Amino acid sequence: MPAILVLNGPNLNLLGTREPATYGSTTLADVERMCTARAGELGCTVDFRQSNHEGVLIDAIHEAGRTFKEGALLGVVFNAGAYTHTSIALHDAVRSVEVPVIEVHISNVHARESFRHHSWLSPVAAGIIVGFGVDGYVMAIEALARRASR
Amino acid sequence: MPAILVLNGPNLNLLGTREPATYGSTTLADVERMCTARAGELGCTVDFRQSNHEGVLIDAIHEAGRTFKEGALLGVVFNAGAYTHTSIALHDAVRSVEVPVIEVHISNVHARESFRHHSWLSPVAAGIIVGFGVDGYVMAIEALARRASR
Amino acid sequence: MPAILVLNGPNLNLLGTREPATYGSTTLADVERMCTARAGELGCTVDFRQSNHEGVLIDAIHEAGRTFKEGALLGVVFNAGAYTHTSIALHDAVRSVEVPVIEVHISNVHARESFRHHSWLSPVAAGIIVGFGVDGYVMAIEALARRASR
Amino acid sequence: MPAILVLNGPNLNLLGTREPATYGSTTLADVERMCTARAGELGCTVDFRQSNHEGVLIDAIHEAGRTFKEGALLGVVFNAGAYTHTSIALHDAVRSVEVPVIEVHISNVHARESFRHHSWLSPVAAGIIVGFGVDGYVMAIEALARRASR
Amino acid sequence: MPAILVLNGPNLNLLGTREPATYGSTTLADVERMCTARAGELGCTVDFRQSNHEGVLIDAIHEAGRTFKEGALLGVVFNAGAYTHTSIALHDAVRSVEVPVIEVHISNVHARESFRHHSWLSPVAAGIIVGFGVDGYVMAIEALARRASR
Amino acid sequence: MPAILVLNGPNLNLLGTREPATYGSTTLADVERMCTARAGELGCTVDFRQSNHEGVLIDAIHEAGRTFKEGALLGVVFNAGAYTHTSIALHDAVRSVEVPVIEVHISNVHARESFRHHSWLSPVAAGIIVGFGVDGYVMAIEALARRASR
Amino acid sequence: MPAILVLNGPNLNLLGTREPATYGSTTLADVERMCTARAGELGCTVDFRQSNHEGVLIDAIHEAGRTFKEGALLGVVFNAGAYTHTSIALHDAVRSVEVPVIEVHISNVHARESFRHHSWLSPVAAGIIVGFGVDGYVMAIEALARRASR
Amino acid sequence: MPAILVLNGPNLNLLGTREPATYGSTTLADVERMCTARAGELGCTVDFRQSNHEGVLIDAIHEAGRTFKEGALLGVVFNAGAYTHTSIALHDAVRSVEVPVIEVHISNVHARESFRHHSWLSPVAAGIIVGFGVDGYVMAIEALARRASR
Amino acid sequence: MPAILVLNGPNLNLLGTREPATYGSTTLADVERMCTARAGELGCTVDFRQSNHEGVLIDAIHEAGRTFKEGALLGVVFNAGAYTHTSIALHDAVRSVEVPVIEVHISNVHARESFRHHSWLSPVAAGIIVGFGVDGYVMAIEALARRASR
Amino acid sequence: MPAILVLNGPNLNLLGTREPATYGSTTLADVERMCTARAGELGCTVDFRQSNHEGVLIDAIHEAGRTFKEGALLGVVFNAGAYTHTSIALHDAVRSVEVPVIEVHISNVHARESFRHHSWLSPVAAGIIVGFGVDGYVMAIEALARRASR
Amino acid sequence: MPAILVLNGPNLNLLGTREPATYGSTTLADVERMCTARAGELGCTVDFRQSNHEGVLIDAIHEAGRTFKEGALLGVVFNAGAYTHTSIALHDAVRSVEVPVIEVHISNVHARESFRHHSWLSPVAAGIIVGFGVDGYVMAIEALARRASR
Amino acid sequence: MPAILVLNGPNLNLLGTREPATYGSTTLADVERMCTARAGELGCTVDFRQSNHEGVLIDAIHEAGRTFKEGALLGVVFNAGAYTHTSIALHDAVRSVEVPVIEVHISNVHARESFRHHSWLSPVAAGIIVGFGVDGYVMAIEALARRASR
Repeated sequence: MPAILVLNGPNLNLLGTREPATYGSTTLADVERMCTARAGELGCTVDFRQSNHEGVLIDAIHEAGRTFKEGALLGVVFNAGAYTHTSIALHDAVRSVEVPVIEVHISNVHARESFRHHSWLSPVAAGIIVGFGVDGYVMAIEALARRASR
Repeated sequence: MPAILVLNGPNLNLLGTREPATYGSTTLADVERMCTARAGELGCTVDFRQSNHEGVLIDAIHEAGRTFKEGALLGVVFNAGAYTHTSIALHDAVRSVEVPVIEVHISNVHARESFRHHSWLSPVAAGIIVGFGVDGYVMAIEALARRASR
Repeated sequence: MPAILVLNGPNLNLLGTREPATYGSTTLADVERMCTARAGELGCTVDFRQSNHEGVLIDAIHEAGRTFKEGALLGVVFNAGAYTHTSIALHDAVRSVEVPVIEVHISNVHARESFRHHSWLSPVAAGIIVGFGVDGYVMAIEALARRASR
Repeated sequence: MPAILVLNGPNLNLLGTREPATYGSTTLADVERMCTARAGELGCTVDFRQSNHEGVLIDAIHEAGRTFKEGALLGVVFNAGAYTHTSIALHDAVRSVEVPVIEVHISNVHARESFRHHSWLSPVAAGIIVGFGVDGYVMAIEALARRASR
Repeated sequence: MPAILVLNGPNLNLLGTREPATYGSTTLADVERMCTARAGELGCTVDFRQSNHEGVLIDAIHEAGRTFKEGALLGVVFNAGAYTHTSIALHDAVRSVEVPVIEVHISNVHARESFRHHSWLSPVAAGIIVGFGVDGYVMAIEALARRASR
Repeated sequence: MPAILVLNGPNLNLLGTREPATYGSTTLADVERMCTARAGELGCTVDFRQSNHEGVLIDAIHEAGRTFKEGALLGVVFNAGAYTHTSIALHDAVRSVEVPVIEVHISNVHARESFRHHSWLSPVAAGIIVGFGVDGYVMAIEALARRASR
Repeated sequence: MPAILVLNGPNLNLLGTREPATYGSTTLADVERMCTARAGELGCTVDFRQSNHEGVLIDAIHEAGRTFKEGALLGVVFNAGAYTHTSIALHDAVRSVEVPVIEVHISNVHARESFRHHSWLSPVAAGIIVGFGVDGYVMAIEALARRASR
Repeated sequence: MPAILVLNGPNLNLLGTREPATYGSTTLADVERMCTARAGELGCTVDFRQSNHEGVLIDAIHEAGRTFKEGALLGVVFNAGAYTHTSIALHDAVRSVEVPVIEVHISNVHARESFRHHSWLSPVAAGIIVGFGVDGYVMAIEALARRASR
Repeated sequence: MPAILVLNGPNLNLLGTREPATYGSTTLADVERMCTARAGELGCTVDFRQSNHEGVLIDAIHEAGRTFKEGALLGVVFNAGAYTHTSIALHDAVRSVEVPVIEVHISNVHARESFRHHSWLSPVAAGIIVGFGVDGYVMAIEALARRASR
Repeated sequence: MPAILVLNGPNLNLLGTREPATYGSTTLADVERMCTARAGELGCTVDFRQSNHEGVLIDAIHEAGRTFKEGALLGVVFNAGAYTHTSIALHDAVRSVEVPVIEVHISNVHARESFRHHSWLSPVAAGIIVGFGVDGYVMAIEALARRASR
Repeated sequence: MPAILVLNGPNLNLLGTREPATYGSTTLADVERMCTARAGELGCTVDFRQSNHEGVLIDAIHEAGRTFKEGALLGVVFNAGAYTHTSIALHDAVRSVEVPVIEVHISNVHARESFRHHSWLSPVAAGIIVGFGVDGYVMAIEALARRASR
Repeated sequence: MPAILVLNGPNLNLLGTREPATYGSTTLADVERMCTARAGELGCTVDFRQSNHEGVLIDAIHEAGRTFKEGALLGVVFNAGAYTHTSIALHDAVRSVEVPVIEVHISNVHARESFRHHSWLSPVAAGIIVGFGVDGYVMAIEALARRASR
């Protein structure tokens, strides 16, 4: 069964306890369960990770590039947290590999502070899903599966 | 059966003939067929419209607000075309009604000219789907159905 | 009896239902009644209109220019809604005619989002009234009557 | 009889002699007479002041806050002259008291140099009247009286 | 005989009465006569239109796209008035069709307010003619004829 | 006993009544008492002043420069209120004298409006204390005493 | 026979060999021949020059001012190349003389890099022709002849 | 005994050797000794750390959030070095936990390059201490102890 | 004998002690003596003043306007110190009177911080003298005398 | 007798004929006569030049640097015309030599277009004289003589 | 034999596979071989590293500072990849040590996206080599050797 | 023997006497000797020029384009001095020819004033060498030779 990498950036480990008014009370473990369930229905597995380290995220994107080339990965669902707004290195990482990367944001970043409106990932993303809460992860998995089925 | 309003803004009537490298060769009639088919599977109908007139789009949003209050509408899928980037009046229209409006863009606007990066709709949208081609319409319909089923 | 054109722009048809915390619960029909009553006391009639179409508003300004030249109009009370902030075409329309146009805003736009601080109408307005709620319409009618009585 | 404070900022003492093409030939003494007359008709008195000192204007706003609390003041009509565009201290002063302050400008500041377009008072004003010449003072007095009569 | 579409945007219906110091006293009907005369000499007809509605102008550009494809149109002479400076929708419309569109401005927009210096049409125009008064229309017709004759 | 000048700028006389949600209910008289008490423990007196006049504050800084030279002053604790953000004259005054001036803000100015983020005093201050409420005054007195004791 | 000065700025001597995709393969000598031919038909001669030196171009404009005063020159056709975007001195030169100067650009500068969008010549030009290829020179000559014939 | 986390960001390990004119010759080990001594007097311990890795600092803030909830931590003294100016991830980390974080800078950052004037931490800090040299650490510890003693 | 008003703004009372590297060691009393001496040679007296209060400076400009009208004043030499860069009120004061005002700066403000490069007085000054040290005062007196002698 | 170089930049050869409303009717030859006369009174000669070529002006500044070192030159009076606003090369030239260069502008550049407000020469000038008409040249000569006499 | 540290930042591990049109097909291992070979000819060794972790790069710079002090290192050749454009921490790291650091970029960053034009390393680099492809590494090694040989 | 053109822009003739702290005491004649020596070792000659005239530099670039086509030139080493920052005409000149042009700066322009950070030459240069002092010339010659030897 092919895998989907679901990659989470800084502070997402606090999901469910961090500012619940903005992010809801679902935890990241809940999100992993949702993703695994939906992916299972669509015939694939989920490799679910979180890191607060920019370098670890870059390494993971590179690894996904290799796995994708080998045919073992459908793509990446990437919520880069605050690195979305500051990391040209992640922009370059995504651009350097051929794997489709779907950018996901739980909250509607465009309804929040202006420094959250710009994303370094968007120009290199295969698609962008914003503001659907944790459902965005599921929608991204469905989109990768739909894409792979063509 | 509840309806979903799929609203298309300026120049989308040319879809399929306009800059196919950017927008693909699917026509707007094709998109309507895709939307109707997927909505049917999810138990709802589609009210599919296109206009090049900002005022007509505002009127349609107002009408959707009334229909939603009456329980006959699940929400709006809105690709506002170039008005996305210039129309505060549409921003206010969406904000003035209670119906959920999902913003859709066929192409990845963030990979194009910088004047396409800002959206007046995003801060008031119930969700944003960008860069999945015409699949974005289907994803938005699924999201409205999922939302309504809660 | 000379007339006063009271012209309302996009989304003002929703007055009373739209964001009552900002705009109050008075409807546009209420405003029309208030205007007509006060105008009657001052010896003039009111031509009260609303449109969500920029072109219709431009046409109305042009028509007011002609009626004013014929002596049948005292002036225009204009709440252009969101077009205030985006329409150079309306700026040019007001500048192209000789009729006095008074700009009115119900809410205090300067206490709201920064994109509401700039008005394309202000530089060509005969006067500007902001933040007095719907009383602003009545104040503008009084100002036009006072001006005409000189 | 309740009072209205009419407060004038820098250079307004030169009204009538200063740039008559912009400000007209009415003097500040004339304006005081107009205000007193109209206030008398509406059953209130006028406390008319002018100062070129920012600190004196702040002190006056503070004093108005105390008098308003005691019920002896209906509000303030404030033409802050050039301090409108530079004084955050006056912004804070108005915000620090509860008395309604109406901002008045004789000329249409938005039709003049761009540095006159921004007002530090507008976001904290109870209403803004611009470009009606010295009539603006009378309109502000009427608005305070109308407000008090509710 | 092939046609040329001469398309005029907002407020151009007032030509001749609007700010004659800037735009001269020639009316739009005069311009139509000049265009028809010159086009006749060059062996083509003129379809002369004016609208204050952005949507109507977009529709006209789309229609021109179809007529051009059929070989019945040489091109478009377009004075978009104030929409020049605000309409990304018109930019997209011109870009979406293959017909050559020549941008014309009667006055020298670069000698006027800075908000008239940017044109959304220029990057997609087949040529730009500015500041020759109403002669600009005739020059544009000549240019389209010269282009067609190659 | 050496003195410390505690200097307060515009609107701080309203402390305790002005926007208590932001500034708390402690009055400036309370602050004076706290400062005098803590200074007494540290073996120095407090010269506590407030003015809404920029010129008076400049004069006080100059006077502090002379007193410091004579050895009778340890330094200045300065909460310049809104003049913090606008007064280059106060910047120059502090720079023109040798006395250490500690900048204090009661609220966290960086968590408020962006126009409160820039301080003309900071580049010339001997230290900056922000967001500790009225405790900031005490901390500044302690810092001046610690500095003097070296 | 009256003359027309056709003045070419930096790098135009390379026309035909420089970036043919942008500028075409016509050489400057070809352009001179086209200009001379068309001018001859219209009863005037052409003084055709090119220089890479800003000072030489300023001198030429001054000389044109004197010749125009003597009645021997109809006007100037000026393609200032890159000095268009940087030379206030050329702006002042054109403004300092009375001769009509028509600005010409071969390529559509508004469809190229943003630093080519601003022209120091446009505000002082008697007309502007952009994007018609080398035909723009001929159009400018026709415009000067038409102007002179009035 | 409750603890205080003193957290130091990039390049602070070089304190004492790095640009002594700006940062003094005290080493980070000296600072640790000063902090431990003063904390001991105030009845608490110090957990003193330094890292050049953004991710390690985020992890430490998260850990402090947990320890604070358990009652074992009074708060955090945080000198984030250059990450102060670039890390939205650290901004979010501080905002995601409830522990009070006091921002400290040894030098007066506002008297240095403009890129050091903006701090992503300030808006979420419980207090800010700038420019007191290494004394700032001690002042922050005192402030946390004073806060805890209420 | 006609008088010249020499008006000095904030912090100039410290001249000679304040940052001597920038401003030299001449005191303001020395400057007064130089001015009086040179004015005496040219047949006029000097009214020499300094204030740290913006309002006092505005009042002085107004008074100069009256004295000039009466023929008793040749003009004003004005070094407004830091108010040069912030006071629109002083800009308006100078514009409101007819007396020639010469702006003087001792140091070369354009070789210092960028916030000293903009002057609100320059656009309304009768002449500007910068960077000649205290000689600038004498040059301004000579210029007023030369002007008066015409 | 020592010399003073009076150097004039682009378009100043047209003085007296160019925009007389701005620059007056005095010609550059008149200015040369005035300068020579005043310099003679002060015991020095004038080397008066004008060029429209930036390179020629740079060469002249370099030459002045050599002559000054030899003791044959008192300094330079430099009106660089439009190169004032664009030439970093002239900025560097002045900075590269030790001769005092006084910047002169005939008109009040700060009362004109904003692009004339910035001067590349000001930061490296030994003094700046603006807005005194052609008297500014004489004032600059006097200042160089006064400087040399110390 | 003294060493040279060749330090590579994020995504450079993908060299040769990443966007070959921009970066060529040489791999990082090839670059290491080239560097080692050239360094050997010049009598020194190469310590060649790559990391995607900002913190690891900072640590390496600190270590180089120590090794340089001990005389065992000639300097650093640093290609910081995308951290070039975002890392003030690396700027500070380089500034905090005394070792010469030469900045190298393989591609011509100034011919690419504008966000690649600014480098935080450049102001603190001992030299900058851009756009020579992988030859830039060799040129930097030669420059360090040349520098060391003085 | 093939040649290398070493082209120097404004003020470089003063090298060795101009601001030695920034540029060192080596003269341009010294640089020429160094270049000739190193070029000789590499089997080529040097054509060494300097001009303060932008037009002369453009002419030289054009000439180099022709010589390069004929096979007699390896490339250009270009230190454009201040024209680097202002000359779009030189940008276009380099772009218009096919010869490789290497941009050299003696000092580290990125460690100096911000107006020296932008280069119009960089986007069209074949390589950029900054901050190595006059060694940069030699490095550029080596790079051209290395390039030619492939």
